[in-house]
Amino acid sequence: MIPLDTVLGVIDTVGVVAFAASGALAAARQRMDVVGFILIALITGLGGGTLRDLLLGRLPLFWLRAPGLLAMIAVVAVLVFVAAPRFRLGARMLIWADALGLALYAVLGAEIALLAGADPWAAMLLGVVSASFGGIMRDVVCNEVPLLLTREIYLLAALAGAACFVMLRLSGVWREHAVLAGMCLAFGIRAAAIRFGWSLPPYRER
Amino acid sequence: MIPLDTVLGVIDTVGVVAFAASGALAAARQRMDVVGFILIALITGLGGGTLRDLLLGRLPLFWLRAPGLLAMIAVVAVLVFVAAPRFRLGARMLIWADALGLALYAVLGAEIALLAGADPWAAMLLGVVSASFGGIMRDVVCNEVPLLLTREIYLLAALAGAACFVMLRLSGVWREHAVLAGMCLAFGIRAAAIRFGWSLPPYRER
Amino acid sequence: MIPLDTVLGVIDTVGVVAFAASGALAAARQRMDVVGFILIALITGLGGGTLRDLLLGRLPLFWLRAPGLLAMIAVVAVLVFVAAPRFRLGARMLIWADALGLALYAVLGAEIALLAGADPWAAMLLGVVSASFGGIMRDVVCNEVPLLLTREIYLLAALAGAACFVMLRLSGVWREHAVLAGMCLAFGIRAAAIRFGWSLPPYRER
Repeated sequence: MIPLDTVLGVIDTVGVVAFAASGALAAARQRMDVVGFILIALITGLGGGTLRDLLLGRLPLFWLRAPGLLAMIAVVAVLVFVAAPRFRLGARMLIWADALGLALYAVLGAEIALLAGADPWAAMLLGVVSASFGGIMRDVVCNEVPLLLTREIYLLAALAGAACFVMLRLSGVWREHAVLAGMCLAFGIRAAAIRFGWSLPPYRER
Repeated sequence: MIPLDTVLGVIDTVGVVAFAASGALAAARQRMDVVGFILIALITGLGGGTLRDLLLGRLPLFWLRAPGLLAMIAVVAVLVFVAAPRFRLGARMLIWADALGLALYAVLGAEIALLAGADPWAAMLLGVVSASFGGIMRDVVCNEVPLLLTREIYLLAALAGAACFVMLRLSGVWREHAVLAGMCLAFGIRAAAIRFGWSLPPYRER
Repeated sequence: MIPLDTVLGVIDTVGVVAFAASGALAAARQRMDVVGFILIALITGLGGGTLRDLLLGRLPLFWLRAPGLLAMIAVVAVLVFVAAPRFRLGARMLIWADALGLALYAVLGAEIALLAGADPWAAMLLGVVSASFGGIMRDVVCNEVPLLLTREIYLLAALAGAACFVMLRLSGVWREHAVLAGMCLAFGIRAAAIRFGWSLPPYRER
């Protein structure tokens, strides 16, 4: 059994890197310079976790004394700046990186909210909020239509992952197993939505 | 005399429901699915109060242990999703729901700020901010032009309600009366602006 | 030697006034009324410092008991409303006021973050964030393309100023000198970018 802190730490790091990459790819669509890449990557990578911790009152914020984390995001942003034209990474890659971050942060956000004493419903909401806020900030600052307004299933994937995790935890399932199940469910739904165009019936006026 | 906590509690609940409905109606304009309706309703309904409490340092946040509140917002969102096409609720309804939330939250925000030790000017500002922030978030996430940029009087209504309430309280008027007066003033001004197209002279270049 | 608190206080006030003026000029472009001018000026003037203090946990917020500050911003907004048409202040003036606020707040944000115990890298990031957030909020609420998406160097100027200040402080240079050097560097770079069109190479697809 991998120790818990390591598991959550790895998930957190992978989620931050995925969101940072999606932020850098959004900066690429705006033809920003390398400093813009780094700032958008920081906003996207740290945004969801920052809002989550502000709402829960978890201060001081995790990144105020984590120079390695900031450096890692900056490196990801520079790598995308250099490598994206070479490998023709584009809008498609942005969506997949965002999907990975979404799945990981939905579960991580719910877990941290539960630990901080939120009730199960608030924990699910915080999972969805911390999974989607970094991407919303990314799209608002880059003047793009937020991904959650596109037709394919987005929020439901995060909600399903967070809800699955919270329900498994409440029924006494081990943390690692609940985390894994929630993440796979969220990523699976979002991946199917991207790949096969799954969507829920939209609102329709008569 | 109705006890204070009940009065403020009722106002808060009505305000949250009104904002939640306006959020769901904005989701309808974007043809979102039902999960999108729920998230936009939550953002709009909880946004203003959340920013108010973050700025005042009132933690833990009110909705972290209020599953009933979250459920109520979700129910409002689902009702709008189902009922809006049937009753042809639309942009008009959104504006009226927003007006109701605006009036209630302008006074409630000022009251809570005063209780938390803000000075009267900051209390008025917090009233305006908590009355308008949920709607701003709704419009930004839905990629709409914020309501406060439209020509009809909007912020002045919130400011008048908050200022009226604060001044009455400082001159020793009973809380319930001050709350009622502020709310009626704010809603009256905004309603007249919507109904009769009242507006202030806009900025004009020579 | 001018006492420290006075120096930082003066910088803070000048920065708030500059940002408030840029906010009022943005409101002018939207042909808002005078209440809109005041709110956008407040959001722009207080936004960066508010986010900085929320992230650092510095509560209660500085403007909750500073009626003079709120009044000053309101006066700036009213002055712009009255004077802007007369003196043909416009988009150009907005950009210069923003540049001044950017330079002052980049250094001030880094200084306050260091004092609050952030590590040097986080302090630089907080300098950039508190320098740019007020302007981002201004542009998002006014439905404009954020200034940081324009081609001329923007974030790099804030980063250079914050980094210069932090490095000088870490090498033991006196606070006043480090503040002055950082501010001049940030403003100089941004001014040259505006005046001569300096820009970094943008991202380019093959």
